[in-house]
Amino acid sequence: MPETQMPTARTRLVREPHRAVYDREAVYKILDEGFLCHIGFVKDGQPFVIPTSYGRKGDCLFIHGSAASRMLRGMKEGLPVCVTVTLIDGLVLARSIFNHSINYRSVVILGKARSVEEPEEKLAALRALSEHILPGRWDDVRQPNERELKLTAVLGLQIEEFSAKMRTGPPLDDPEDYSFPTWAGVLPLELTAQKPVSDPNLQPGRETPESLRSYSRKG
Amino acid sequence: MPETQMPTARTRLVREPHRAVYDREAVYKILDEGFLCHIGFVKDGQPFVIPTSYGRKGDCLFIHGSAASRMLRGMKEGLPVCVTVTLIDGLVLARSIFNHSINYRSVVILGKARSVEEPEEKLAALRALSEHILPGRWDDVRQPNERELKLTAVLGLQIEEFSAKMRTGPPLDDPEDYSFPTWAGVLPLELTAQKPVSDPNLQPGRETPESLRSYSRKG
Repeated sequence: MPETQMPTARTRLVREPHRAVYDREAVYKILDEGFLCHIGFVKDGQPFVIPTSYGRKGDCLFIHGSAASRMLRGMKEGLPVCVTVTLIDGLVLARSIFNHSINYRSVVILGKARSVEEPEEKLAALRALSEHILPGRWDDVRQPNERELKLTAVLGLQIEEFSAKMRTGPPLDDPEDYSFPTWAGVLPLELTAQKPVSDPNLQPGRETPESLRSYSRKG
Repeated sequence: MPETQMPTARTRLVREPHRAVYDREAVYKILDEGFLCHIGFVKDGQPFVIPTSYGRKGDCLFIHGSAASRMLRGMKEGLPVCVTVTLIDGLVLARSIFNHSINYRSVVILGKARSVEEPEEKLAALRALSEHILPGRWDDVRQPNERELKLTAVLGLQIEEFSAKMRTGPPLDDPEDYSFPTWAGVLPLELTAQKPVSDPNLQPGRETPESLRSYSRKG
């Protein structure tokens, strides 16, 4: 299948086109830094937006959840979805209220998700999801048994129709406002890991993995 | 109008009902800690999910943006929307892959947004939005003029039909897995403010406000 030309009429940014990104590698970089998406679907004309974790393997986004969930059941039938990933980078504080903004990077993917049923692909997808969130964890823990695999629904969404949007850098004020007597700049915000908290039921001799002490989502 | 009984059929959690929260004050606490929502709407049967900032005033959520945006234009006409706010609290690392999870708090609000047109209400809404993100900023900067107010669309969404979901605490493993030789626990994650970065075009004598040095979203 030929690559869909980006942007499509549905993903082309009308507002603030200078903030648009249609480059696949740049989009993957955003997807790889995040691990939580908001997935939108429609039921009886009403949109629903649900947060869930995801992983990426090549040009496929994997989403998992309970096989029983209403949302995932709907998607198995090929319901149109929108998956959005947003990274918050900072508050942009201008001299005028009007020019205040947020530094962020976001990706929007439109498409129809397919159910990943084939056992080997399902296992590989779950591994990709796990590696996406915490590399190396999969090999350190008990892997899924048959019952658990059956209870887990995995969905794949091809990254075909997408766009990204970002804002970076300092505030941009109107020329006449630069003399306004207030501070202006950016307050950077970052999702940071704190000190790992051991399970109260942890057995003796289980050391905190080194990877957790330096955990960061930055690429 | 009588308070809608929570949950409705559309907001009642079917999956993991023990994680459900329908208490209004608890929901407000989540909304007040966040400032970025994902708003879902439908166009030609396709759902779209867009990140945007918000503020809260009583039982009303305010969302703003350019008056020209396709999304906000749609909502002015009373399009059904879903607004979802998610706070990420940590990675839950169990002994089995299957019991891995994420600690989070999320709120889902369903409804129809109305356009805030009346100038005084619009200004109050914008102030609420600004105060929600950075208390005190409104009084420190140049406030909106007539042209800017016209360029800004403000939407109000009554917080009537909603639900929240949260997961807290350590991993829960199957009894037979507690002896599995791996570390288990929680890696707390938090959106934290870094050192403020002054605008390169800042004029001399504009000191960084004290409020930015101790900025935190925690209530």
